[in-house]
Amino acid sequence: MNKQQLVEQIKQKKTFLCVGLDTDIKKIPQHLLSADDPILAFNKQIIDATAPYCIAYKPNLAFYESMGVKGWISFEKTIEYLNSNYPNHFIIADAKRGDIGNTSAMYARTFFEQMNIDSLTVAPYMGEDSVTPFLNYEGKWVILLALTSNKGSHNFQLTADADGERLFEKVLRTSQQWGDSNNMMYVVGATQGRMFEDIRRIVPNHFLLVPGIGAQGGSLEEVCTYGLNSECGLIVNSSRAIIYADNSEQFATAAAAEAHKVQQQMAIELQKKGII
Amino acid sequence: MNKQQLVEQIKQKKTFLCVGLDTDIKKIPQHLLSADDPILAFNKQIIDATAPYCIAYKPNLAFYESMGVKGWISFEKTIEYLNSNYPNHFIIADAKRGDIGNTSAMYARTFFEQMNIDSLTVAPYMGEDSVTPFLNYEGKWVILLALTSNKGSHNFQLTADADGERLFEKVLRTSQQWGDSNNMMYVVGATQGRMFEDIRRIVPNHFLLVPGIGAQGGSLEEVCTYGLNSECGLIVNSSRAIIYADNSEQFATAAAAEAHKVQQQMAIELQKKGII
Repeated sequence: MNKQQLVEQIKQKKTFLCVGLDTDIKKIPQHLLSADDPILAFNKQIIDATAPYCIAYKPNLAFYESMGVKGWISFEKTIEYLNSNYPNHFIIADAKRGDIGNTSAMYARTFFEQMNIDSLTVAPYMGEDSVTPFLNYEGKWVILLALTSNKGSHNFQLTADADGERLFEKVLRTSQQWGDSNNMMYVVGATQGRMFEDIRRIVPNHFLLVPGIGAQGGSLEEVCTYGLNSECGLIVNSSRAIIYADNSEQFATAAAAEAHKVQQQMAIELQKKGII
Repeated sequence: MNKQQLVEQIKQKKTFLCVGLDTDIKKIPQHLLSADDPILAFNKQIIDATAPYCIAYKPNLAFYESMGVKGWISFEKTIEYLNSNYPNHFIIADAKRGDIGNTSAMYARTFFEQMNIDSLTVAPYMGEDSVTPFLNYEGKWVILLALTSNKGSHNFQLTADADGERLFEKVLRTSQQWGDSNNMMYVVGATQGRMFEDIRRIVPNHFLLVPGIGAQGGSLEEVCTYGLNSECGLIVNSSRAIIYADNSEQFATAAAAEAHKVQQQMAIELQKKGII
């Protein structure tokens, strides 16, 4: 999916919500455990229920890998289900990969060619040749970690060099030599508040993937105040608050209601900014 | 495997070689392609042939993930084979993971508890809470990326802060508050030459995992001159130069010969340093 198509979806559906498919066998409703593939059964119902209110889905690979081979089957089938039934939803594999060039090239083939996933989160520590193999695919995206939502983001990401440039700023600036706002996005945690201002100074036109709303404590309103640009430029993720809104047989209806609530807040923000 | 057991293996076998199982279906000998699981068949023969000359195996997850579910089956079976037949070999899952705390905790359970792997490579960008969940397992290790072997290592890892401390040095120093030389190692590329001196100043007692010998151009002698400590303190990896030494039905014999050659060089280095 290219940038224009993504912006089109956002305007049409009045939402920039991404639903995080952090599906944990220990947290899904009991009655699903008798299904052939409980993870897939859960995901399908969550997807069907929330699709009108979001423009993206983000399975976090760790949740699937933690179940070994079975988990990979659930992951692949979830992607197939999305590709077959919801081709207008943007798919983010939250994998946080990053390795030497030839290895990153293998990851790119796996996620982009074989699985037809739109985008992949990538860690920047290993630099240019760990990122560029992902940039040669039309309509596919790297989402580079910049300023993450967790406490540990303070350990290294905020370290300033001799000129006062902090590491996350250097990542933003340097990586613009590798790609542009048509094939790169950045992860910026919703918990980072006014830092969005600093980020928008460096990457005014890029999309930002924003985790940390809900369970992690970030505020949607604050993120929008400092992060929205004229094309929206934000994909805001919520995982636990939506997919585990309820643990009964009505879990999907409850997830839809939560997603709808966020969508309505997002519509207000988009209107305030004159985007819709 | 704890540090004492690892050092014991190194002294007994006079080697600190790790064989990298970067197994690529496109590069393995033709005659294996008719096997049920060609990747596993290749790995088993490579392992049987090289086991006397190395103390560790390091499958790079990317090579297995690139084959989807099939690849994960090959990976899990390779680990089972190692655990059943070579319990004294140290297993490194080269996964370069790193995510927020609860996600890292899931990875730790997968690799350490379920698969009984000794160690996992982890990217430091997300900081403390992305690393510490891996440190609570007796005899298990985090191998944190510090100074990698690739060209892109220059983009961020060498950036100095206002006090002149470079990012990889900050990673080494800061992470010592999270663990110690009994549960942490660091990745330092063989291509980094005299930087090993700087690294040994900060982490004199830690083991370093050193990729980049062979195909990537690093020199074993140089690495040893600057990197060896009194307990050896190095695990040097070679992948392509060993496992693809030959492409015929004699591939395993050829791999053994290459591994043996490296082992002999390592024995000399260990003697020079008075470790054996």
